Amino acid sequence: MGIVYGQPQTVKTHFLGLPGYSIFKLQKSSHMDKIFPGIWKVTLGQPEDITPVKVRHTEPAVEAIGKLPPVAQCPIPEVSLWGRQTKRGFSVRIGLQDDEQIYGLGLQLLSFNQRQSKKTLRVNSDPTANLGDTHAPVPFYLSTAGYGVLVDTARYAAFYFGVSVPRRSLAEVTDERQPGYSPRTLEENIAWVTRDRNGPVIIDIPTAEGIDIYIFGGPEMRTALQRYNLFSGGGCLPPRWGLGVWYRASTGVDQQQVLSLSETLRNDQMPCDVIGLEPGWQSHAYSCSFTWNKAFPEPRRLVSQLVGQHYHVNLWSHVFTHPSSPVYEALSPYSGDYEVWGGLVPDLLMPEARQILAEHFTREHVDLGVSGYKLDECDNSDFNTNPWSFPESSQFPSGADGEVMHSLLGIQLQDTIEGIFRQSNLRTYGGVRSSHALAAPYPFVLYSDLYKHKDFIRGLVNCGFSGLLWTPEVRDAASEEDLIRRLQAVVLSPQALINAWYIKNPPWKQWRTVQNNADQFVENLHDLEAACRKILELRMQLIPYLYTAFYHYHQEGIPPFRALVLDYPTDPNVWQIDDQWMVGDRLLAAPVTAGEQGREVYLPEGPWYDFWNGHRIEGGQKLSVAVPLDTIPLFVRGDAVLPLAQPTLHTEDPASYNLVVRIFGAGNQPFTLYEDDGLTFGYRDGQFNTLTITWDNQRQSGNQVRTGDFAYPGYKIERWERL
Amino acid sequence: MGIVYGQPQTVKTHFLGLPGYSIFKLQKSSHMDKIFPGIWKVTLGQPEDITPVKVRHTEPAVEAIGKLPPVAQCPIPEVSLWGRQTKRGFSVRIGLQDDEQIYGLGLQLLSFNQRQSKKTLRVNSDPTANLGDTHAPVPFYLSTAGYGVLVDTARYAAFYFGVSVPRRSLAEVTDERQPGYSPRTLEENIAWVTRDRNGPVIIDIPTAEGIDIYIFGGPEMRTALQRYNLFSGGGCLPPRWGLGVWYRASTGVDQQQVLSLSETLRNDQMPCDVIGLEPGWQSHAYSCSFTWNKAFPEPRRLVSQLVGQHYHVNLWSHVFTHPSSPVYEALSPYSGDYEVWGGLVPDLLMPEARQILAEHFTREHVDLGVSGYKLDECDNSDFNTNPWSFPESSQFPSGADGEVMHSLLGIQLQDTIEGIFRQSNLRTYGGVRSSHALAAPYPFVLYSDLYKHKDFIRGLVNCGFSGLLWTPEVRDAASEEDLIRRLQAVVLSPQALINAWYIKNPPWKQWRTVQNNADQFVENLHDLEAACRKILELRMQLIPYLYTAFYHYHQEGIPPFRALVLDYPTDPNVWQIDDQWMVGDRLLAAPVTAGEQGREVYLPEGPWYDFWNGHRIEGGQKLSVAVPLDTIPLFVRGDAVLPLAQPTLHTEDPASYNLVVRIFGAGNQPFTLYEDDGLTFGYRDGQFNTLTITWDNQRQSGNQVRTGDFAYPGYKIERWERL
Repeated sequence: MGIVYGQPQTVKTHFLGLPGYSIFKLQKSSHMDKIFPGIWKVTLGQPEDITPVKVRHTEPAVEAIGKLPPVAQCPIPEVSLWGRQTKRGFSVRIGLQDDEQIYGLGLQLLSFNQRQSKKTLRVNSDPTANLGDTHAPVPFYLSTAGYGVLVDTARYAAFYFGVSVPRRSLAEVTDERQPGYSPRTLEENIAWVTRDRNGPVIIDIPTAEGIDIYIFGGPEMRTALQRYNLFSGGGCLPPRWGLGVWYRASTGVDQQQVLSLSETLRNDQMPCDVIGLEPGWQSHAYSCSFTWNKAFPEPRRLVSQLVGQHYHVNLWSHVFTHPSSPVYEALSPYSGDYEVWGGLVPDLLMPEARQILAEHFTREHVDLGVSGYKLDECDNSDFNTNPWSFPESSQFPSGADGEVMHSLLGIQLQDTIEGIFRQSNLRTYGGVRSSHALAAPYPFVLYSDLYKHKDFIRGLVNCGFSGLLWTPEVRDAASEEDLIRRLQAVVLSPQALINAWYIKNPPWKQWRTVQNNADQFVENLHDLEAACRKILELRMQLIPYLYTAFYHYHQEGIPPFRALVLDYPTDPNVWQIDDQWMVGDRLLAAPVTAGEQGREVYLPEGPWYDFWNGHRIEGGQKLSVAVPLDTIPLFVRGDAVLPLAQPTLHTEDPASYNLVVRIFGAGNQPFTLYEDDGLTFGYRDGQFNTLTITWDNQRQSGNQVRTGDFAYPGYKIERWERL
Repeated sequence: MGIVYGQPQTVKTHFLGLPGYSIFKLQKSSHMDKIFPGIWKVTLGQPEDITPVKVRHTEPAVEAIGKLPPVAQCPIPEVSLWGRQTKRGFSVRIGLQDDEQIYGLGLQLLSFNQRQSKKTLRVNSDPTANLGDTHAPVPFYLSTAGYGVLVDTARYAAFYFGVSVPRRSLAEVTDERQPGYSPRTLEENIAWVTRDRNGPVIIDIPTAEGIDIYIFGGPEMRTALQRYNLFSGGGCLPPRWGLGVWYRASTGVDQQQVLSLSETLRNDQMPCDVIGLEPGWQSHAYSCSFTWNKAFPEPRRLVSQLVGQHYHVNLWSHVFTHPSSPVYEALSPYSGDYEVWGGLVPDLLMPEARQILAEHFTREHVDLGVSGYKLDECDNSDFNTNPWSFPESSQFPSGADGEVMHSLLGIQLQDTIEGIFRQSNLRTYGGVRSSHALAAPYPFVLYSDLYKHKDFIRGLVNCGFSGLLWTPEVRDAASEEDLIRRLQAVVLSPQALINAWYIKNPPWKQWRTVQNNADQFVENLHDLEAACRKILELRMQLIPYLYTAFYHYHQEGIPPFRALVLDYPTDPNVWQIDDQWMVGDRLLAAPVTAGEQGREVYLPEGPWYDFWNGHRIEGGQKLSVAVPLDTIPLFVRGDAVLPLAQPTLHTEDPASYNLVVRIFGAGNQPFTLYEDDGLTFGYRDGQFNTLTITWDNQRQSGNQVRTGDFAYPGYKIERWERL
């Protein structure tokens, strides 16, 4: 594990030269170029024109790539890489060692370790079967052998990881020519049918006549991922307010009701930084007008009042453009040949379409003070219970077809919207329902209408492999327990989102939908609010820590939320763990779902500490953990110091910079906080400070060293604390 | 409904001529030929070489087609049919009227009426999502407007039925240019998002550069289906024994245990005509050796002993060929470039491969007296929990690729196997796990490992639209009630199959798996056996009736098991009914699943009678029916006479020809039974009799008239009965 392929053995992949096989057109890699340190590009055949890399708007973070450990040679040698063109498209084979574990492929809600599986990356907003369908397909995978592979296609490619075995020659099967074993029970039958077979990686790319493959060296799997994220442009750094609590109001509210909600949240002392408006704010939604509904007669006043209360405003939208929209006619020549919900499908691969939308959004929303968007419906329908969206055979003026557009719409939309704010030197943070390759630089968090808590947790753990962010958002709940368990997970995610879009009141007043909408609150309102407030306050305490983790995402490509296997690739115990994750470098989260009376937590080798009581736990073992409803299993890695903010109602409260530094064990591992204006892109020009916090256990005293002298509000250590 | 398109309005399908759309390559239908009465063929572009029609082995039943009602002109006018070639393949649009209902596309377990849906016909043995994935995709659909469409492709084509709407021009949306309605509650949102849109039929065929489309006129939907089935060659006529009860023994049995099972069934007086052996009979299964296991030291003696007890023997197999098989080396040059379970994938589009398998199967099994096969695993894995099978990018010597082979393997295998028996002038009947277009002539019944009873019932109802047969087979059960409910449904299906492949004893001795395999029987063994025996006896009583229904399938293409909408296309009440079906022309079945305390049954217009008590029920209404566990809701259409056989233990018992004729109401609708040797193809040369049974209600006396004088055992009316 974690090895660099030095001279890996030639994989047992071969094509037969039997009669009748003349239709095979083999194509050895035509060239393999080292394009950046540790990154190779292989071109096979004639790749398509519209691919994730070719239509990217970001630049690789070349300097940061150069700081990663060197990789002597391409981890996948030319000899184990083959392509062939068929009538169906282009097919690639890549060698795979017996013990490699495989992760990635984007937002996979139903599976984790992809070794011995096949996945077809169809864009689908309702992926109920574990076939690869996903909101956010990313044709990138990572191997525990220490490399990553990006297949540069926007097609619905199929990936086989070891499950399909090329045919052997007669000579190779000689010792199997005697009668063998035949299963005689159900169990034996299943065992035979499912026994492991070790084939190569096979990637079938429909339609294409060639493909560019990018290979990212490690030597560690995590370093290969960093290289991929930096090749994408580096991870996003959200504005500081984006890491606070998000609350999306019911779609039925009017201007006055939004203001009354904003007051209720403050009066109830429930932390909140962002208020989101759902479809009802538009004069026409499904399809969209992008203009304010008459229920919002004074949008400028509304936004400025909310901003005055230290909220940021986020607007829901999708791109399907209703005839009543002021931009309909302008977009018309730059749209596809099918409608969605009676609206145009703007071709976001055309600069004209991007420009028209950006100008309108700027003038009508952003200039009023709106801070971001929730970009809905940019994936694709599964056409199951609720058919919508454009067919894969749609044609767009840019030359894209519907399949390619489904893959790329989400990422092109993210770029269009982020560009609006970038122009004003403002960061944004928002939601998006679809993404694809090279997404790391975009400050948008994926979400889904599927609402299974365990799958939502798996989605969070998986997203870190693919340069994606994901929120296991909280809506209504099946029970008080379910509400609390969901809140506990969401505050340890990229976006602490309460999405009350179809409930009138916050779920902590009533988790049942019908009663909530009838203003009938739970009997233990005070207790339930207090319990939920405590969870949201944990989020507020973690903001300095999380903001720093995002800075490492931006600078080094290390995902702030990630599976354990990224940090411990050689430990087989973590290869299947899809319900625990690292939050930054120091915290390990293992949330609980409703109905669980306890849970098992695996802690990898090394010392760990219970976040809540500071007790030391020796790693390298599986623990049975008690899970009282008011506790999230949360562990601190090593003898660390951990800075926690004073919980406030929002991040503009200066008190949110006041820190308590918690000391675990000997506390001999310092922590460096990242500090900037929290709002602009100044950090890209070096406008930031760092604050390194150390603890001297012998002297029982702490120390802090600041680099940079920018006059931000700045963190203040108020107290050192040992539990 | 049921109308012939005379001059249907031009469908609102158009392509835009906007700038940037020059990549469109429009292709009006190049020619539309009437190839048989009421059947048109349209060729668009350059169709592929390997398609269901081009590789068919059967001939259209031209004479029978000629006997159907005439159709003046093609129900789909040229003007409403467009094709275009894209990089992705070929795309077709066909006009669709607002009120047309659509059915078909093969074995769809999760949906019924396909109007306003999209289905992609991927071959998949475990279709858990309603996306079109299926064991048996059939690119054929029927419309209540009275026509059928066969898209001649073995590709995984996508069908959109009205859900995707081509873009309108600016002029067309003028009246939508003012701000409209925006949803303000969850319900309003769902209503808006899901409201019906009326687009055309869109068919996306990947890879292809053209397509042949066959259009089948009605004027009624059922007649269009008959035309399709007759174009396929006419429905199969199983041997008479095939309609008896089937019992598949546990895969773990040896020769002696099979014989003891066969005796147990007779001693317990449980009807059974066929005993099936599961994988354990082969010396190597997964992959297959096709040779007998040492647990079966004297296969010839075993088969002849079973035949002597009036059983027919059916053998499980798949085609993936293990190196230990005697035919491995011979098949090697005629196999694909991937392995499945370590075995070859024979290319059944090559006559050589078919011949090698047929010769071996003949010599090793059929010459010993084996009567048929269960053809397993010829579909494709969904690569979900249990990955297997060859990739879509596989290549075969015939020039087929894996995608095409997955679609066609089942039907080519059916032809190969049926050919073995046809050579000896013997009919066979068996099971198959995959099928495709033009399947009607093949005497194989589809089945699945998915075991949801309601889905199994829906599968049965759906299969009749596509020239397929399906058995909702019975294995173990969740309860005694579940066992009985499942048996009640399976005896009203094409194959009354008890598939005990992983339970040692019949399920009526113990429905729980573990206890069954430990020989621990239920306490109420006697009662449960009696209840199950009664259900199996109903099957035996119905054999003359079912055999006649199959004859109509063969002669006229009328499916013996079919949805109500085929008989009542103009009644909107039946458009969604997926849990009732017609069994032949006289019976309507509405079985119950476990847990249901009652059920609703809709009876279309006209008089109906309760099969069990003869009570008259007026149709055109929905009934709430009591469902005591010992009763299957079963209704007789019209004032019918219904011949029922004396229940016997097997169909070779001469008593099975003894009839009781049950009279319903005035009994003034005669019934004509079909009668032949039940075994050979002599009927194709006119070697059959018919026996027309009439009842004179005034005189209270019955009459029978036989045509043909072939000396078959022959039906004898023993009694006329009125309940």
